[in-house]
This record gives sequence, C-alpha cells and structure tokens, in this order.
Amino acid sequence: MVQQERAIRTRRVVLEAAAQVFAEHGYVAATVADILKTAGVTKGALYFHFDSKEALAKGILELQTERPLPPQETRLQEVVDTAMTVAHRLPLDAVLRAGARLSADPAGRQYYGTAWASWIQVLTDLLTEAQKRGEVLPHVEPREIAELIVSAFNGVQLYSQLEHDLADVERRASFLLNHIMPSIAAPAVLLRLDMAPDRGARVFDEATHMAVTVA
Amino acid sequence: MVQQERAIRTRRVVLEAAAQVFAEHGYVAATVADILKTAGVTKGALYFHFDSKEALAKGILELQTERPLPPQETRLQEVVDTAMTVAHRLPLDAVLRAGARLSADPAGRQYYGTAWASWIQVLTDLLTEAQKRGEVLPHVEPREIAELIVSAFNGVQLYSQLEHDLADVERRASFLLNHIMPSIAAPAVLLRLDMAPDRGARVFDEATHMAVTVA
Repeated sequence: MVQQERAIRTRRVVLEAAAQVFAEHGYVAATVADILKTAGVTKGALYFHFDSKEALAKGILELQTERPLPPQETRLQEVVDTAMTVAHRLPLDAVLRAGARLSADPAGRQYYGTAWASWIQVLTDLLTEAQKRGEVLPHVEPREIAELIVSAFNGVQLYSQLEHDLADVERRASFLLNHIMPSIAAPAVLLRLDMAPDRGARVFDEATHMAVTVA
Repeated sequence: MVQQERAIRTRRVVLEAAAQVFAEHGYVAATVADILKTAGVTKGALYFHFDSKEALAKGILELQTERPLPPQETRLQEVVDTAMTVAHRLPLDAVLRAGARLSADPAGRQYYGTAWASWIQVLTDLLTEAQKRGEVLPHVEPREIAELIVSAFNGVQLYSQLEHDLADVERRASFLLNHIMPSIAAPAVLLRLDMAPDRGARVFDEATHMAVTVA
C-alpha cells in the first residue's frame, strides 16, 4: 500500500515536471532529458509510468478538468466559476498552462489530442442544466456557447500570457464574461452573477477547504 | 522603372511564399530553403530583399493591416467589417494565416514581434471615433474593447483552424461579435449592425471593386 502511494506520488511529480517543461518550451522543443532533470527521478521511474513524450502530454491533458468546484445557487454561476478558477490558477499551476499550450499547438496536437473537448463538455453540461432551470435565454444553444467561451477564453489567456506574463489574466477573463453573459443569461440571473476578477480566487479557496473537509 | 516594378513583385512573391511556409510549419520549423523552393526565386533574389528568416517574418507582419475597407454609415460597422473580412480572408490568404500563427508563437515572437498591436490600434481608433459619434455606450473604454475583440477573435479563429480547418471561421466570428456587441453598442446602432457570417465576403468584394476603380 505504501509502495502504491509512492508510485502515485512519483507519477504526479513526473507529470508536474513535464508540465513545467511543456509550458515553457512547447511540445516539440521539450525533451525527456529536460523532464527527468526537472522531476529529479530516475529514467526507470519515469518510463515505468510513461513510455513516451506523447504519453506524458496525454497524462497532462487528462488532469485539466479533474478539480470539482463547490455547487452554487445557479448553474450559470458554475459556468462563470469554471472559467474564473482556471484564470486564477493559470499563473500558479504549470499543469494548466501546459494544457493550454499543448491544446493550441498545431504541430503537437496530432500526437496527443487537446483539452478543449473536455472543457467544452463540462460547460455544455452546465449550460444544458442551466437552460432547464430557466437561467439562460431560450434561444441559447448550450454547445455553441460552450465552444464560444472555451475558444474566446483561450484567446484572452494567450494574449495575457504573451503580452503581460498572465499578470492580468483574471481581469481579462472577467471582462470577457461581463461582455458575453448579458446575451446569454436570463435578466434576473444576470443581476446576481458574480463575475468579479477575484471570483476565481474565492471559489478556489472554498474548493480547497471543501477537499480538506471531505478528506 | 520596369526593374523597380519587378523588384516589388519579387519581394511580394517571396513574402507570399514565406507566409505559406510559416502558416503551415510555424516559425521555428520553417527554413529559408523551404521558402526558396516555394517562391521559385534564386537565393540572391531572396537575400536582396530579406537578410534573414526574422526579416521575412517582420515583412509579413507589416502586411496584416494594410488593406483599406470601404467606409460605412457607422464606425462600429467598420469595427465589425474589420473582423469579418479577416475571417473571410483567413482560409484564402496565407499572409493573414501566417500573421496569426507568428503572433501567437511563444518561441518565435521574441525575434519578430506581433501583429496584434496593429490590429488593436486599428480597432481602438475606430471605437474612439464611434464613441465620439455616440455609437457605443458611454462607459466603454475603446482600447479595452479593442484588446478584447482582438484576443477573443484570435482564440475563435485558432479553434476553427485546429478543429475545422477554418471551414466555419466566418460563422464563429459572427457568433462572437453577436454576443459582444450588445454590451458595447448604443441600442439604435446595434439594430442596424450587419454581423452576418457572409458580411466579410460582401465587404471584401466591395473593397476589391473600390481598389480597381481607384486604380
């Protein structure tokens, strides 16, 4: 059992190291040697879990949407929270930054896929439920809006990353949502949506507390 | 004079070829040998105009915002037209596709810069003029909205490119504008904005006709 726990921990250490290298250098320029050096594990330990650079990229993409968020009064608030916690975590979390860079890499993604499909599914499910509850306008097509939010958000975070090293990503994500939500949300729901730049930080703290309480 | 015209034409042929190679392979993977082969010119002819791969990338970025659009009744329609003609031209024009890819390349842009700043300036100027004319709401900050449109548009076009080979880029650009403009435009102006997916094609035809008439 102790051995299994250690294996799980090693796997995570390797993925975190791979994420740092992919986030900084991109998939094509990254090498397994760089990842080994960053992880501080043996070649054998790495290859026990991942048999290729491709497998490392796939492992990182699987982690993108794993974190559960605290339930809110409306599903539409949970849509906002999904985007705003990603914006909050991007500067802090190499796994998310690597996920964004890997997904947008025209050369690499043929080998390992993309995280966009998972994010679109998460938002489509929330928006479908939101629509059943009357929180979004009747003409809204959940999947179309999910694709719009994921693709536009990606453009906004990329801009923030390349121009301002992600220092303003929460403000820009908040600004995007503030300009899209009025054409999606039912008026009474819109008034109560919290889309402030620090929303992600607050929800993330709540989620972390929630995880600790459950454990 | 004939010689000068030929030099200008050769320069353009080389830039078009470089754009095709950058758009397909990205800056780092592209080689001057690939560009020479695509252009069908001699090494001497290429180096007469551009002394490095970096100079080629800079030359392409300078071409991004060069095309004048026909004036419209409102400046806000011209904002829409700027975005929709880019969406229309992206699948047809390697220079624009290369501009988008070069601008979003974290590894390459330290060498040659980005086209985003020029696009943001074009839209900021139009939005500032639109605001003076009462076409956009008083609280709108032109530069913030210009940055939002350029960055979100980039995310939308990248999604369309990587997931659907740009086949739906006009529909997605139209969808983005339809969801952002209601929180920017004065109500009477919003009602008259043409943001249809084929708007770019119509304006581009008009601009081409305009250029022919002037010449």
